Amino acid sequence: MAAEVRVGLIGLGTVGSGVVSIIQRHQDELRHQVGCPVTVKKVAVRNLNKQRPVHIDSNMMTDQIEDVLFDQEIDVIIEVMGGVDTTREHVLKALQNGKHVVTANKDLMAVHGAELLRVAAENHCDLYYEASVAGGIPIIRGLSDGLSADRIKKIMGIVNGTTNYILTKMSQNGSSYDDVLKKAQELGFAESDPTADVEGLDAARKMAILATLGFSMDVSLDDVSVKGISSVTEEDLDYCDQLGYTMKLIGLAQRDDGRVEVSVEPTLLPKQHPLSSVHNEYNAVYVYGEAVGETMFYGPGAGSLPTATAVVSDLVSVMKNMRLGVCGNAIQEPLHKRTLKEDKEIDSKYFLRLRVIDKAGTFQAVTSLFASYDVSFEKLLQLPIEGEEVAEVIVITHHTNKENYLKLYKKLSELDVIESIESCYRVEGGK
Amino acid sequence: MAAEVRVGLIGLGTVGSGVVSIIQRHQDELRHQVGCPVTVKKVAVRNLNKQRPVHIDSNMMTDQIEDVLFDQEIDVIIEVMGGVDTTREHVLKALQNGKHVVTANKDLMAVHGAELLRVAAENHCDLYYEASVAGGIPIIRGLSDGLSADRIKKIMGIVNGTTNYILTKMSQNGSSYDDVLKKAQELGFAESDPTADVEGLDAARKMAILATLGFSMDVSLDDVSVKGISSVTEEDLDYCDQLGYTMKLIGLAQRDDGRVEVSVEPTLLPKQHPLSSVHNEYNAVYVYGEAVGETMFYGPGAGSLPTATAVVSDLVSVMKNMRLGVCGNAIQEPLHKRTLKEDKEIDSKYFLRLRVIDKAGTFQAVTSLFASYDVSFEKLLQLPIEGEEVAEVIVITHHTNKENYLKLYKKLSELDVIESIESCYRVEGGK
Repeated sequence: MAAEVRVGLIGLGTVGSGVVSIIQRHQDELRHQVGCPVTVKKVAVRNLNKQRPVHIDSNMMTDQIEDVLFDQEIDVIIEVMGGVDTTREHVLKALQNGKHVVTANKDLMAVHGAELLRVAAENHCDLYYEASVAGGIPIIRGLSDGLSADRIKKIMGIVNGTTNYILTKMSQNGSSYDDVLKKAQELGFAESDPTADVEGLDAARKMAILATLGFSMDVSLDDVSVKGISSVTEEDLDYCDQLGYTMKLIGLAQRDDGRVEVSVEPTLLPKQHPLSSVHNEYNAVYVYGEAVGETMFYGPGAGSLPTATAVVSDLVSVMKNMRLGVCGNAIQEPLHKRTLKEDKEIDSKYFLRLRVIDKAGTFQAVTSLFASYDVSFEKLLQLPIEGEEVAEVIVITHHTNKENYLKLYKKLSELDVIESIESCYRVEGGK
Repeated sequence: MAAEVRVGLIGLGTVGSGVVSIIQRHQDELRHQVGCPVTVKKVAVRNLNKQRPVHIDSNMMTDQIEDVLFDQEIDVIIEVMGGVDTTREHVLKALQNGKHVVTANKDLMAVHGAELLRVAAENHCDLYYEASVAGGIPIIRGLSDGLSADRIKKIMGIVNGTTNYILTKMSQNGSSYDDVLKKAQELGFAESDPTADVEGLDAARKMAILATLGFSMDVSLDDVSVKGISSVTEEDLDYCDQLGYTMKLIGLAQRDDGRVEVSVEPTLLPKQHPLSSVHNEYNAVYVYGEAVGETMFYGPGAGSLPTATAVVSDLVSVMKNMRLGVCGNAIQEPLHKRTLKEDKEIDSKYFLRLRVIDKAGTFQAVTSLFASYDVSFEKLLQLPIEGEEVAEVIVITHHTNKENYLKLYKKLSELDVIESIESCYRVEGGK
């Protein structure tokens, strides 16, 4: 083994700067763990003149990515530049050139993960991606090592910090979605274009990665059914609270009899559920294994240093593998053929908020429609709306299958005593 | 590599039976992960005639431990018999005989861990012990791999299910310690002799293991300051609740400037702290890393299948190492010399409940004593006790060092206006 391990970075934003800073500050511990020093040899950036929060010698910087990818002395490439298609080409080049890769890029792994892992294994290279899901939480290791003996049945994740921050603040302060989003943008918890976060796409990418790993099945982004939080109202959250629930944007991956469903949507959880206590920008992944039962991994889902910690932990794993001469060996092909559930196999409870005409017979018409689809009520709340001739009916159903629920939903929307279906959400985490 | 990996068990209680059951049921997944089948070849038990919850062929059973330890065909020994000194000898024999060992034995690892790991490394054998701390929670891996790049500053653990169950039920139902303990014993959540659990010894063993690993320093059981929960009263819990805190038996391991403290004691945490939501028999370990910030690992701390899952996950790691030919390589000597904090370096807040004579001047005498030790109040509550000439004063202090606090405590206990110090607890988890 080389007297030192040399690392090249592509990208030097907040995560990249954090990686450089940790490597510099924790040199002793790193050397102790892997038996040799680790140095950053070259860093590719777009703009050489930009100010950076870490000190890097200017002759180590380059604006030519190839200078890093083809440097014969570099052992490991750390990809923290982001992007999908061009980045895929860079990572492929690196792997084909015999370099190990550590990436923090969820977009890349969600879309091209299967291909990149295959190419890595073919070239006896490592490809690690702990930082791509839930920043500082070692959930990828949790699934691949810690729970390796178990059969994972269900993964529920709060894997997007922006939306969790927004929902937490809406609940705590009774504020509107728009007000909280604006505040979150000011504080840097939301992007100026928040679409990927608030519409659930970011969470969906992470759930595709977790489902692929947890179920040993090639689940792609297109397999994830996605709904964001932009239409959640403060009234919805108020009713949740009254009924003993917390609303979270939950990424759900579930397996029953070898068939899986993966979704991201605003979901009601009982207040006692471990995920209900995950507030603000924090992330958490709840895993239900056949043998282990309930476990949860909690921590910061983003941020320069937490994410950089995950990257450097991956780097440590690569360096250990290099020392042991076993790089790429641990990458596994999926065990199971991708098999998705049909709607009639997807079982859940639902929250519905209906605006109904406040007159005799309405309630009976609504309840008998539910009964005709064999959907019974777990909780029911009817509230007159002051000064109007309408009332609100809030329902939490017992379990039903999605096909049945969608049919019921359509009939409800056509029923003449129902003025509108104000909102509907999935309810999880109970018995 | 062998066409199959053969495992020998010593012990076949609840965890051992769980291990056999998981190996039998998850054979396909295990084979997929390690590339060859795994079989249980021989099991040593004390009593051959006892009924077992799993089916094992009778000619695989033996009551001679040596039959397993010296079986040339066995690759990995799973130690689930418990015990300390005799078990140490068995494990030493196994390692010296070239067998890898997986153990679920916290007592053994807390007392003889350093020696056993050294002998394992010398013999190029693996020694894994994930199940020894917090059952199904992969916290050993979390510290050794997931957070390997970070510098751990603080570990706070709810690592004993029995005491967490008791404190949860006392808080929720306002019941006394004795009543809840009796109920817990009936339900099987507490042993008939609960001493090791309720007096904090079990938690102390686990904290010694976690501190050793997290700080890369040889922390022994004797270094852990221990206080149990048997004197906690329902009144204490009621006051905690009123003041916005939850009481938990917290194992604390903290490092500042290279000096560490490790303790187990009933501790008040703010209700918003992630550990405050860990209820009943569940365990959780909260880790604060310099870079990653707050993370938490949550799950079942005991139980046949969760603990067995951890054992089999270790077995998978051993089998992967065998395939890669790198057994024993990952075991590291501690990096740092064991350096414990003195009392004056241990910084905390405290909760004190005093019974004071209810007359003019008392309050002033008490507060001026606090002031003379430079201990200020974060919260203060004085309540008259009906029909008596005494009042209760409940104090939560600001931060002070332990040496100072102990001096103040002594003076308080001598002060004539104080009838008694009813209780005192550490307060953690705030700013």
